[in-house]
Amino acid sequence: MKRLFELDEWKVQTHMLEKKDRRLQESLMSIGNGYMGMRGNFEETYSGDHHQGSYLAGVWYPDKTRVGWWKNGYPEYFGKVINSMNFIKLDIYIDGERVDLYEDSISEFELSLDMQKGILSRSYIAEKLGSRIHVEVERFVSLAQKELCAIRMKVTSLTGEVTIGFAPALDGNVVNEDSNYEEKFWLPISITENSLTVETKPNDFEIEQFTVAAKMLNRVENVEYVRSSTTDMSVVQEYSGKLKANESATIEKLITLTTSRDSLKEEVTKKSMQISESVAAFSFEQLRQQQVSLWQERWDKADVIIGGDRAAQQGIRYNLFQLFSTYYGEDDRLNIGPKGFTGEKYGGATYWDTEAYAIPLYLALTDQKVSKNLLNYRHNQLPQAEHNARQQGLKGALYPMVTFTGVECHNEWEITFEEIHRNGAMAYAIYNYTNYTGDESYLMDKGLDVLVGISRFWADRVHYNQDKDQYMMHGVTGPNEYENNVNNNWYTNKIAIWTLNYTLASLEKAENKKRTLNIRKEESKKWQAIIDKMYFPYDEKREIFVQHDTFLDKELRPVSELDPAELPLSQNWSWDKILRSPYIKQADVLQGIYFFKEEFTAAEKQRNFDFYEPLTVHESSLSPSIHAILAADLQKVAKAVELYSQTARLDLDNYNNDTEDGLHITSMTGSWLTIVEGFAGMRTAGGKLSFAPLLPDNWTNYEFHINYRERLLKMTIDNTINGLTVTLVKGSPIELTLYEEQILLKDEYNGSLKK
Amino acid sequence: MKRLFELDEWKVQTHMLEKKDRRLQESLMSIGNGYMGMRGNFEETYSGDHHQGSYLAGVWYPDKTRVGWWKNGYPEYFGKVINSMNFIKLDIYIDGERVDLYEDSISEFELSLDMQKGILSRSYIAEKLGSRIHVEVERFVSLAQKELCAIRMKVTSLTGEVTIGFAPALDGNVVNEDSNYEEKFWLPISITENSLTVETKPNDFEIEQFTVAAKMLNRVENVEYVRSSTTDMSVVQEYSGKLKANESATIEKLITLTTSRDSLKEEVTKKSMQISESVAAFSFEQLRQQQVSLWQERWDKADVIIGGDRAAQQGIRYNLFQLFSTYYGEDDRLNIGPKGFTGEKYGGATYWDTEAYAIPLYLALTDQKVSKNLLNYRHNQLPQAEHNARQQGLKGALYPMVTFTGVECHNEWEITFEEIHRNGAMAYAIYNYTNYTGDESYLMDKGLDVLVGISRFWADRVHYNQDKDQYMMHGVTGPNEYENNVNNNWYTNKIAIWTLNYTLASLEKAENKKRTLNIRKEESKKWQAIIDKMYFPYDEKREIFVQHDTFLDKELRPVSELDPAELPLSQNWSWDKILRSPYIKQADVLQGIYFFKEEFTAAEKQRNFDFYEPLTVHESSLSPSIHAILAADLQKVAKAVELYSQTARLDLDNYNNDTEDGLHITSMTGSWLTIVEGFAGMRTAGGKLSFAPLLPDNWTNYEFHINYRERLLKMTIDNTINGLTVTLVKGSPIELTLYEEQILLKDEYNGSLKK
Repeated sequence: MKRLFELDEWKVQTHMLEKKDRRLQESLMSIGNGYMGMRGNFEETYSGDHHQGSYLAGVWYPDKTRVGWWKNGYPEYFGKVINSMNFIKLDIYIDGERVDLYEDSISEFELSLDMQKGILSRSYIAEKLGSRIHVEVERFVSLAQKELCAIRMKVTSLTGEVTIGFAPALDGNVVNEDSNYEEKFWLPISITENSLTVETKPNDFEIEQFTVAAKMLNRVENVEYVRSSTTDMSVVQEYSGKLKANESATIEKLITLTTSRDSLKEEVTKKSMQISESVAAFSFEQLRQQQVSLWQERWDKADVIIGGDRAAQQGIRYNLFQLFSTYYGEDDRLNIGPKGFTGEKYGGATYWDTEAYAIPLYLALTDQKVSKNLLNYRHNQLPQAEHNARQQGLKGALYPMVTFTGVECHNEWEITFEEIHRNGAMAYAIYNYTNYTGDESYLMDKGLDVLVGISRFWADRVHYNQDKDQYMMHGVTGPNEYENNVNNNWYTNKIAIWTLNYTLASLEKAENKKRTLNIRKEESKKWQAIIDKMYFPYDEKREIFVQHDTFLDKELRPVSELDPAELPLSQNWSWDKILRSPYIKQADVLQGIYFFKEEFTAAEKQRNFDFYEPLTVHESSLSPSIHAILAADLQKVAKAVELYSQTARLDLDNYNNDTEDGLHITSMTGSWLTIVEGFAGMRTAGGKLSFAPLLPDNWTNYEFHINYRERLLKMTIDNTINGLTVTLVKGSPIELTLYEEQILLKDEYNGSLKK
Repeated sequence: MKRLFELDEWKVQTHMLEKKDRRLQESLMSIGNGYMGMRGNFEETYSGDHHQGSYLAGVWYPDKTRVGWWKNGYPEYFGKVINSMNFIKLDIYIDGERVDLYEDSISEFELSLDMQKGILSRSYIAEKLGSRIHVEVERFVSLAQKELCAIRMKVTSLTGEVTIGFAPALDGNVVNEDSNYEEKFWLPISITENSLTVETKPNDFEIEQFTVAAKMLNRVENVEYVRSSTTDMSVVQEYSGKLKANESATIEKLITLTTSRDSLKEEVTKKSMQISESVAAFSFEQLRQQQVSLWQERWDKADVIIGGDRAAQQGIRYNLFQLFSTYYGEDDRLNIGPKGFTGEKYGGATYWDTEAYAIPLYLALTDQKVSKNLLNYRHNQLPQAEHNARQQGLKGALYPMVTFTGVECHNEWEITFEEIHRNGAMAYAIYNYTNYTGDESYLMDKGLDVLVGISRFWADRVHYNQDKDQYMMHGVTGPNEYENNVNNNWYTNKIAIWTLNYTLASLEKAENKKRTLNIRKEESKKWQAIIDKMYFPYDEKREIFVQHDTFLDKELRPVSELDPAELPLSQNWSWDKILRSPYIKQADVLQGIYFFKEEFTAAEKQRNFDFYEPLTVHESSLSPSIHAILAADLQKVAKAVELYSQTARLDLDNYNNDTEDGLHITSMTGSWLTIVEGFAGMRTAGGKLSFAPLLPDNWTNYEFHINYRERLLKMTIDNTINGLTVTLVKGSPIELTLYEEQILLKDEYNGSLKK
């Protein structure tokens, strides 16, 4: 654990320039607006170790991964989010010498991300050649105009007369940190004194080349334009002016970025100019005001308040801020990348995280159409999912583990071929949306296409074992990626059978789909036979569901008996040792119990939790939340709180010691899920909304909002005698269950908290 | 199956220039001398699809393989045999126009590899610009002078006057076919009008850079030297002369190649000059005569004669020829590469093939010191094997799957970490050598170091299962690479326990080693406990050893029920489908039964053979021979013959449809093993030599040699009444068993063949 920033309710700020942890600091100071974003890099030069990274959603490159060993069905490329040009670049010169925040003497450093307003700001005093200057910088990526990144920099002379230079630039000389062979992915197209247009390199995989254009508009005070100079991949402008003591110079750099995703290739440059012109009509203060009010709108619907625990409060707001910065549902061609705009690791834009962890949050905190867009994304990619299945010689549809287009682009066989439980999450999300919203139109219109594709895949992927007269599923990787290629993973078998069941039941309501999808009697009968005869590993002695066929043959030592110096295992053990160990990276059997909680008795949940949680190392950022929710359900409040703090501040406290590579965006939903489904006990199964709130000991109160079937509800829990208030902020009266009691909520309900 | 060459006892020849199968033709025409070798490329230009490849033993490059996904313990590079400079290059010009065997009109083409003499020759008539010329070429890599490659080219004018040009060259502009990013691995060092010195690129892995120098000496008749020209990586000389009808011009190109493996870097170039000078003293005819007589010496010790089946005869000689061309034991820093000097696929120089398949052949066909060199190679690399084990967090020594230096350089986890049965083969080879030769000095002096290292690895790699009170070994890949990450692979468990046993028994005879290797009582006791309590999967119903824990849960359909169009599976099925299938790539349980045949009853062998062979697709070139030997043992002669023909002509008939990538060198031992251990039933266990020969129906006779404990024996089997003759060619009388009868062989024994 490493905490670099101060505790505050709305801000993430520090007074330290952490040179040793600059990458971590950069990751945490990332900002984005769903269209683009960047790490918390400085505009000025920083010559120390850091990671310069700006990213544009949906702009990627298929990097070759075929290195020697190859087998049929392996994807040919690995799709990478690529580092875009460095468009924030803005150097400061003191009497002709460039300021370098790594080398120069810097004092009174302050760095602050205002989550309420969506603005990154900082200030410091630099001393150079006998002069001292005060530098103040603000940056934001606009919610009002997605193509706009706005920077304002103000320099004040603190000593005598000094010549101050500004050098705003656009620099296309960037390399991805994870480029396999230090390849550059960009080629120049055109350049002017204030614009740069570049294009991704051609590739061998028939993937489109992306054009990106940037235009910079520089507005200055107290400095004069001197000149601009260009190379084939960069342009720099120079401004200069003399300041007396206490005088200031200012530059506003407004960059507009457009891509061939939104315009014809040949019009991308023109488009960036047009937007630049329209933006020019606004003062920086006006643009800033738009930003503040649009972020406020988001918070009004989604804010969570936690009393008595500033760390927890900061954690949940940080997670919501970064999630919304990554994705807010405006563009149904995009999805929620695991690193958002904060780093390059993992590659790909879309994981099953979206369906399993993100959709429940977006359902409750944003308009219904946001979640529907996420479902549409998968429906649009159904042909590619069918392609993926065909690549494996299988029927139906296999949604990818990692993708941009729907075609699988991750090339580890143990993941690509085997971690197929992801397919079930696609089906589960359709159920989740339909059940939560009550809107069956997506299911009937498009969802069934997806469900049938997935069901056909499962039906072909299982095999019949004559000796045992049962169906089995061999060669899979469950959610616990610390084991690969196991047989009869309980969770995978479970979600496969659940999919077949849900598909059959949904088809009963859709005769037309049965026809258009050509569902014959024999096919439904086969599916039913698989449902009836599926094999699930079970241990009679311990009365638990067994993770997979030979899991119990392992040496079953709890994590608590390991030397803490060996944790995290992923950084200290060889992969060989990890694979053979009983240690679980993230919920596996328990993921199934979480999804289908209504099917199990409290005793069943307890036995499985008590067996598996002690073997779980929670080295996936997706792990603590699911366990926290189950722990809360089992009234293990202390355990739930411990796990909550891991999920809520995973990045802020660098729990997994890898946040320097970027934030764990998709797992940020976990803290919210823990509060709402865990502590507040929200359930929605069967179209019935219920809560069974508890209040963690160290919290005085908490409060959150829920968007549910055209209502906005506010739930307030505190440690007074009447500790439970439910407010209907918007919408018509609604029935809900609190603990076991059913109530009709008209405007506000006050009750007491059950201990 | 595709047969490009004519059947002949000593030659592999054709009259077709197979433009569509040029790569296959090139692979089959490869020649080598243990030090260097090359594919059957033309000296002249061939502009059609082909694969130009020349290789120098032990000269390699560590190619980066780290592409995005990475885990602790993965090797950082993949060692590759690298394509050396093209030093055979020798263009012909007709009136100034270059001959191109792909584009030009070629007739009376003849291409022939003389296996008896070790010479590749060809001739053809080319027609160009109205002139016709007859071209004759001979090439060999010298056994007498390992650094020498000799080429003679003779051109005769068949029409009127014509100007003939020769352009001998050295060309360093080569790329490996399997270079990950089309990288060149070579940098220029120096160049003169007749020499070129190059060096491998620097690398990030602290692997030495290799310097390679080539000097060409060109001796001509009826042409004159014109000029030479150089670029930074190539030199070309030009010769020209006018020929009248029926006149000939000749060029002899003698290339000497030296490397920094044998000289100091700064002396490599000088060394190639010196050798060139000493070679210059000999006429081409003299050099050629040395070649012929040295090959004859090899054949005198090793030739196998088969009567009545020319395909079988050609097959066995081809295999011996290519094996000896790859390795004849002169240099104990080298090993037997799976592709020898015939291609680039696989990479690495050393596989467990050496110990499992090659040592038995070299023991019988070459001097004892050749096999001892192969054992020394592994002993020299013991520190690296210990390093490999440490990389996995394990004790002892883990010999690599693929290596040049002893450090593992293959980066698929399912192989690197898991296919650890290879470690057992290292131990088995020590037993094999000791048992075959009767020489215990290697075992006592060095072998025990290796055995103890391997035993310590096994003892740390197993785990104790409390529920079952047994030791188990999880997470392995058996010899059947069509399954990965299985638990309790019967073969791996078997060879691990055998190693522990053999090590303990050998240590009993070596008190000094017990001390120097620090073998304490507790350690031997632990090993004994593992031996006593090892778990072996067994099926009570079928009474067979089970390949691994859940093998019998698969859908067990024999190969014969597959659509033949689906074979080979490796080319037609996705890896996912293969892994889940019951189909076996090469002997797995049966490999164990082959190694330890004395431990099993005939009924046990039969039950296991009858269960596993029908599930085996033999898609490893190492597969048919082991099955053929077991089939012969079980008197399934027809099956043995069928499998023999696959192993004997695997490359000549392109059975696996991949010989275009290079020959399957290490598996070439299989045909010899099948004849000697299979048909002739040779056994050597317990230091007792025995035979139980049978004669395949379609053979009239066969004959082979065995070098055994300082004797040379010749065994002749034919279909006459006294069909069995054993001749003591050299050495003192020896006891041996024929069928069940024990005899003392003094000079010659004649007996009859048991039906």
